[in-house]
Amino acid sequence: MSVGDVSKRILLGRKLSSSQLGETLLPKRIALPVFASDALSSVAYAPDEVFIMLSAAGVTAYAFSWKIGLAVALVMLTVVLSYRQNVHAYPSGGGDYEVATVNLGRTAGVTVASALLVDYVLTVAVSISSGVQNAASALPFINHHETAWACALVILLAGVNLRGVRESGTAFAIPTYAFMAGVIGMGIYGLFLGITGNLPDVESADLTIAPAPGYEGDLGQIALIFLLARAFSSGCAALTGVEAISNGVPAFKKPKSKNAATTLALLGGIAITMLISIIGLARSMGLKYVDPDDIDRLTLHGQPLPEGYDQHTVIAQIARAVFDGFPPGFYFIVATTGIILVLAANTAFNGFPVLGSILAQDGYAPRALASRGDRLAYSNGIIFLATLAMVLIIAFDAEPTRLIQLYIVGVFVSFNLSQLGMIRHWTRHLKSETDPAERRRMYRSRAINTFGLAMTAVVFVIVLLTKFLAGAWIAILAMAFFFVLMKGIRKHYDRVAEELKADEQDKVMPTRVHAIVLVSKLHKPTLRALAFAKATRPNTLEAIFVDIDDDTTKRLLDQWDERGIDVPLKVLHSPYREIIRPIIDYAVEVRKQHPRGVVAVYIPEYVVGRWWEQLLHNQTALRLKGRLLFTPGIMVTSVPFQLRSSAVALERERREQGRVHAGDLRRGRTREEGDARGEGDE
Amino acid sequence: MSVGDVSKRILLGRKLSSSQLGETLLPKRIALPVFASDALSSVAYAPDEVFIMLSAAGVTAYAFSWKIGLAVALVMLTVVLSYRQNVHAYPSGGGDYEVATVNLGRTAGVTVASALLVDYVLTVAVSISSGVQNAASALPFINHHETAWACALVILLAGVNLRGVRESGTAFAIPTYAFMAGVIGMGIYGLFLGITGNLPDVESADLTIAPAPGYEGDLGQIALIFLLARAFSSGCAALTGVEAISNGVPAFKKPKSKNAATTLALLGGIAITMLISIIGLARSMGLKYVDPDDIDRLTLHGQPLPEGYDQHTVIAQIARAVFDGFPPGFYFIVATTGIILVLAANTAFNGFPVLGSILAQDGYAPRALASRGDRLAYSNGIIFLATLAMVLIIAFDAEPTRLIQLYIVGVFVSFNLSQLGMIRHWTRHLKSETDPAERRRMYRSRAINTFGLAMTAVVFVIVLLTKFLAGAWIAILAMAFFFVLMKGIRKHYDRVAEELKADEQDKVMPTRVHAIVLVSKLHKPTLRALAFAKATRPNTLEAIFVDIDDDTTKRLLDQWDERGIDVPLKVLHSPYREIIRPIIDYAVEVRKQHPRGVVAVYIPEYVVGRWWEQLLHNQTALRLKGRLLFTPGIMVTSVPFQLRSSAVALERERREQGRVHAGDLRRGRTREEGDARGEGDE
Repeated sequence: MSVGDVSKRILLGRKLSSSQLGETLLPKRIALPVFASDALSSVAYAPDEVFIMLSAAGVTAYAFSWKIGLAVALVMLTVVLSYRQNVHAYPSGGGDYEVATVNLGRTAGVTVASALLVDYVLTVAVSISSGVQNAASALPFINHHETAWACALVILLAGVNLRGVRESGTAFAIPTYAFMAGVIGMGIYGLFLGITGNLPDVESADLTIAPAPGYEGDLGQIALIFLLARAFSSGCAALTGVEAISNGVPAFKKPKSKNAATTLALLGGIAITMLISIIGLARSMGLKYVDPDDIDRLTLHGQPLPEGYDQHTVIAQIARAVFDGFPPGFYFIVATTGIILVLAANTAFNGFPVLGSILAQDGYAPRALASRGDRLAYSNGIIFLATLAMVLIIAFDAEPTRLIQLYIVGVFVSFNLSQLGMIRHWTRHLKSETDPAERRRMYRSRAINTFGLAMTAVVFVIVLLTKFLAGAWIAILAMAFFFVLMKGIRKHYDRVAEELKADEQDKVMPTRVHAIVLVSKLHKPTLRALAFAKATRPNTLEAIFVDIDDDTTKRLLDQWDERGIDVPLKVLHSPYREIIRPIIDYAVEVRKQHPRGVVAVYIPEYVVGRWWEQLLHNQTALRLKGRLLFTPGIMVTSVPFQLRSSAVALERERREQGRVHAGDLRRGRTREEGDARGEGDE
Repeated sequence: MSVGDVSKRILLGRKLSSSQLGETLLPKRIALPVFASDALSSVAYAPDEVFIMLSAAGVTAYAFSWKIGLAVALVMLTVVLSYRQNVHAYPSGGGDYEVATVNLGRTAGVTVASALLVDYVLTVAVSISSGVQNAASALPFINHHETAWACALVILLAGVNLRGVRESGTAFAIPTYAFMAGVIGMGIYGLFLGITGNLPDVESADLTIAPAPGYEGDLGQIALIFLLARAFSSGCAALTGVEAISNGVPAFKKPKSKNAATTLALLGGIAITMLISIIGLARSMGLKYVDPDDIDRLTLHGQPLPEGYDQHTVIAQIARAVFDGFPPGFYFIVATTGIILVLAANTAFNGFPVLGSILAQDGYAPRALASRGDRLAYSNGIIFLATLAMVLIIAFDAEPTRLIQLYIVGVFVSFNLSQLGMIRHWTRHLKSETDPAERRRMYRSRAINTFGLAMTAVVFVIVLLTKFLAGAWIAILAMAFFFVLMKGIRKHYDRVAEELKADEQDKVMPTRVHAIVLVSKLHKPTLRALAFAKATRPNTLEAIFVDIDDDTTKRLLDQWDERGIDVPLKVLHSPYREIIRPIIDYAVEVRKQHPRGVVAVYIPEYVVGRWWEQLLHNQTALRLKGRLLFTPGIMVTSVPFQLRSSAVALERERREQGRVHAGDLRRGRTREEGDARGEGDE
């Protein structure tokens, strides 16, 4: 087989995997649960936040809960409609980052990226905290240990993702559909009970809410508006995750954009239905819900609640009441809610490396992140994500209410910049488009995005006003940090690229090659290095040995003669048992004599397979190589000699290659095709 | 200047430094404090241990303290006499490890090495704990926070040694001589006071000691003997550190052995004088001293001691009483004692790397430890030592009394094996020696070592019997662990050496060289790599590029043509954005076609200088190199291109080279000569 064939074989391999690729893409029914778990899960905690905010003014303000729910639903509707435009216009999966970069420039793109990075951390923290809080409704032993359980869950998730677990459509589909069916089923059953006049009250119905300090008595107009704004902006937590589909378009079956847009519409419809159902039921069933930190504002018939009273989540309270005589119903709702919240956190672990690789391709993150195979980069990313999430969970006592104050601002930063970018996009395309039908469509799209921008901009301002002091400043600070960091990385790469730019004088070829083979002992690796060096036919070839004690040197010289090796052996003396410095000094000296030549240093290395063997071998070779790299005009050649134990490493490497990396599913890299590649690698 | 001259220049450099070496060696007056701080410092705590052990039977047993002091002095005398034989016979500085290895075989040598390793850890723990306890006598705020202060001191010492601080003769000489002068002066003044009948009582003289549980009433013969044996073996702590001089012979001025032997004799004389003075004074001044944990066995006129009573060390109590009207005298004694104990701990930090490098040369420790320049290896050693010492300090509440139970067994393991080795040594030499005078000397030396062995063997048995359950088992377990570890490392090196042994077929030269230059972009490093590769005139030369997106590939191909590069560029397709696997696959394929040839892979690398720049660059090159090493028949050449920032690293490297490493003084590497080398490295 000639080299040409090899190339063809590799080309062929590509064709095969490309064709396979189509088969493993996601149909809508699987894509929906995979990409919607984040968005749907937020429906589980958004109503709680609305009721908590309203409760500040006592139960009277609960009259507004309906309206706030509708307002949130309206925002969600416009956001979903807007994003349907995005997936059509940018089917490559770059999402908001790409839209902002292409249309608004790099600074906007990096801003969106910073917001997304902060969002991933908060998704983990909020989802897990909420999941634990939810689980506490059914599992009393979790009560009052929420932080510990939440941290344990984050560590578990990080562990699973470090180990490499394939996101599978089924794993998402079953619990997501179960959650949807459960909540919507509960809504329908509740509606039926309501119509028949049998709707029971929730456990907190008999409680009374004392207004928070500062909200006693009649509220002024402004105070009321501010209260409603706060409740509304907290409710907008329901919107988080809606943008996920726009990052996942490449994983959809063809026609990708159309399928993605349909899925997005489905997602919007389901989320709105669920949100309205929950708020409606809660309101009708007399729910009373306050900030867990202000639990003493709840009273029962004028008496404080018993010590250790546990306030269960809204969804759990409703489920317990609706399924009063049917405990499995309650447990089903609580269990699926918990699972979907964990799945939502897991999507952050999968989305993070995908965003990292996109940023790395653009030079805003270390380049190593761009390559799928770089396990170390992934691992660091996962550990980074988990650590930050745990810091937040611990700092905020695993209380979703307090974490959500940080959350929403980032989401709306990307919503806004993305919408603004889309408007620019349509305007630009309208300049060149002539087909009237197409132009009409573009005008319509632009109108939708403009409306979307208007809506999200208003929400963004409300969020900023109501949340800034409550915690959003932390998120903004973190975004600013990521922004500066990414800009700095890019600047560094640009500076290096400038320095590396080729010019004319770079074609000068060195006139001669002076080869030096390092000898430590006369064993197989040395002989191989000598043979290889000789095969390259350098202008001069010599072996050098560093003499650190006379006996060893004498023995080596004897062996050298004995074997009749026809390469001259030069001995460098090193009175202080230093090995590296004499070699460097010598190489530099040789190079000085032939400034237009090049010194090739051959280092025999034996390759071992286990990590502890690494500690015992080649440390000197490693440091020497590192040191020689800094010396101009010298090239360093490793001549490896594979010891038997190196097979262990090869085997491990092969297993490693076959492993799953977080984010694979999102990039359209799924089981069958991964395995096919793995088998081909013999 | 020809290459021959270079070699000569390096030879010349060696001569220069050898001659310098002599000038920086230690005269006796400096060597004594440097090597004796460990041995002398143990005199500071050994008497306390004797009194504590005796106190179990109440104050009546204190009558034996004199005799026990004399017994310990006798053992010390024989050990000193024995080691004088060692330094004459083995002047190379290998110490007990060398004596045991040469005469008793490797297993004995490794046993001694294990014992020494454990000893170093315990030296740090015991000295620092004792130093802190001593400081507490003068500085009341340390009381009851001994563990924290001891840990802080260990961290400080480790930090100082990590940073690299030159052990200087002066730094040792002043406090060591001050300590000797202080204690002996106190002894003489105390003797004078005693003769004139003015000897005051110590602060604890009025106290009464209740016997420990089980020691009430009249003691049986056996119980008394056991008690005395325990007290004696605790007192033998005074012997620790005596062997240090035998490891430091190379640092002495000529005649090395003679000077070392004289210094040893001096050390023995001083230590015995100090020990006897302290025990004598304590006894005469009515000292009462119990285990700090059993402080409630002390009573004052039948009443328990006041809450928070602090029992000061023996030396501090004596100093306070003797210098009653002269506080500077008391503070002088306490301060010099504290300093010498810290110096003793510091010697462990310096001795540890020296032992490590000797073990590494013999293949019992990672080879990297053998090279002075390996800062990482040193750092790990220092951190290891500090961590273990802190674990011990925390586990034993920084109480020297409890730590000493672990300490002495290791010391006596090396004493015994060393004496046994010396007997063998003389016996072997007697076989060939014919000169009667020389034979007589050898007979005498052997007699001394035999007597030494008899003495240390008895002590060893006593120590084992009395200390095993009290903690010696921990030390023995640790020794066993190090023993197995070192044996395992050696076995691994042997197995690898066997596998690497050259045989006849290793001379086969590869028939042809197929050179592959990896291209990621067309920039200076790539052009340089191409030029270098071309200069080596391979049989075939091609450039390869991994295509991960079509635009980049097209751009590169255009540039390639534009610049008219005469090396064929082959494009490997990689549908999954993998870079490493296609290259490996290709290289393996090429190699398969020419099994008798060799594939040379040239990797252009740009070299940056700062650690964070490393994170941003060359990660792929690094992993690729790592991966290619495991692929047979391939040699990997790095063609470095030094970016401007690489100068930072070169500068750092230069500073690093000039730095001090722990243990330098012990190896005869001192300031002047280190600086001279540093200056020569331009």
